[in-house]
Amino acid sequence: MKRVTVSNNVIRRLPRYLRKLSELEEQGVARISSKELGESLGLTPSQIRQDFSCFGEFGQQGYGYNVAALKGEIESILGMDRGYHAILVGAGNIGRALLDNFSFSEWGITMDCAFDIKEALVGTSFKGVEIKSASEMADYIDNNKVDLAVLSVPKEKAVEVAKELTESGVNAIWNFTNVELTEPNSPVLVENVHFSDSLLSLSYFISEANDEKAAREQRLRNRNV
Amino acid sequence: MKRVTVSNNVIRRLPRYLRKLSELEEQGVARISSKELGESLGLTPSQIRQDFSCFGEFGQQGYGYNVAALKGEIESILGMDRGYHAILVGAGNIGRALLDNFSFSEWGITMDCAFDIKEALVGTSFKGVEIKSASEMADYIDNNKVDLAVLSVPKEKAVEVAKELTESGVNAIWNFTNVELTEPNSPVLVENVHFSDSLLSLSYFISEANDEKAAREQRLRNRNV
Repeated sequence: MKRVTVSNNVIRRLPRYLRKLSELEEQGVARISSKELGESLGLTPSQIRQDFSCFGEFGQQGYGYNVAALKGEIESILGMDRGYHAILVGAGNIGRALLDNFSFSEWGITMDCAFDIKEALVGTSFKGVEIKSASEMADYIDNNKVDLAVLSVPKEKAVEVAKELTESGVNAIWNFTNVELTEPNSPVLVENVHFSDSLLSLSYFISEANDEKAAREQRLRNRNV
Repeated sequence: MKRVTVSNNVIRRLPRYLRKLSELEEQGVARISSKELGESLGLTPSQIRQDFSCFGEFGQQGYGYNVAALKGEIESILGMDRGYHAILVGAGNIGRALLDNFSFSEWGITMDCAFDIKEALVGTSFKGVEIKSASEMADYIDNNKVDLAVLSVPKEKAVEVAKELTESGVNAIWNFTNVELTEPNSPVLVENVHFSDSLLSLSYFISEANDEKAAREQRLRNRNV
């Protein structure tokens, strides 16, 4: 597969496109124009055409995009058809909530097993995923295909366990610990899930809405003086 | 407070700035230049100066930014000093994982109570947060300050419960259900936590790294023929 350099912003928009295209497919929509797709996502048609052009030509001038074909292409670009295998490291609340609520297989990823230091958990299964002892982890990675590790250990353990993972040969970490693991020049891919970034954006928008409301009320009061 | 229109991209970067500035403060760094701050975040100095200029002048040419002052300004811009109150709707795995692992107060938000339909949970507390019956929710919202609701009910219930919340007067939802709740022209603020977007970006980067490795190996093989 030929790869072109694609900007981070485009990559970040691909999952959103995919979600929208899945919705459209479920609704029985077969074709969509860049204008319609843009409107539903708050993007301009030219932005959308530009994003997709990074990966080759999907649409046909005047005919719009074939929803199923475009969805398939994006899935493939995102690596969903590559059969990646994952392990869960840390089967506490967050780890179990993920196993319980998040469908890895929907995204093309097989969750093979989990690791934890709690003796009481070792040997049990949660949602069909076996929990093994953390002491077996390096050995397991040596002998199995592990494309990524989901890191959901307590904060205090994050750096130590991440180090163990990468030294064992795991090159990608989906990081739920809220601890910065990215090291300059490291070949390890770390994708952080920072809940707080999302909450703070919401807090900003609430503040903005409150300020606008207050300003409107002030204008009304001034008018009535 | 005077508000200027700020682009969504800038707002999304503010929590990252805040996290970096908190780290710097912990390390005892008092001042930082836009160049250094940019390098640590993968942004250009001019990008950083432009972002901060949206909110007024924080830096001094040649002296860099005062870390504590800039951090305080960003906290204030993000509404962290406004005393927002939140409720948790749905005290299942995800809801409890949030209460267990996420510090709302760190971000200036008071988590007052949770609601669930499960009778066995009603009246109990989790991490100091009382779980009330979902049937009392509308009444509670009527009589208390609720600036935002954290929505962590099962997928199938998401739309129905979101409707109940907004009809009761809650105008902001932090949505963990992975169901699109945004409606065109609705004044309700919805901030989605889409785990899959993050996972798919990681899957893309793994694929990119694999392809690059394969291409390198191919080049080596060609050379050795």
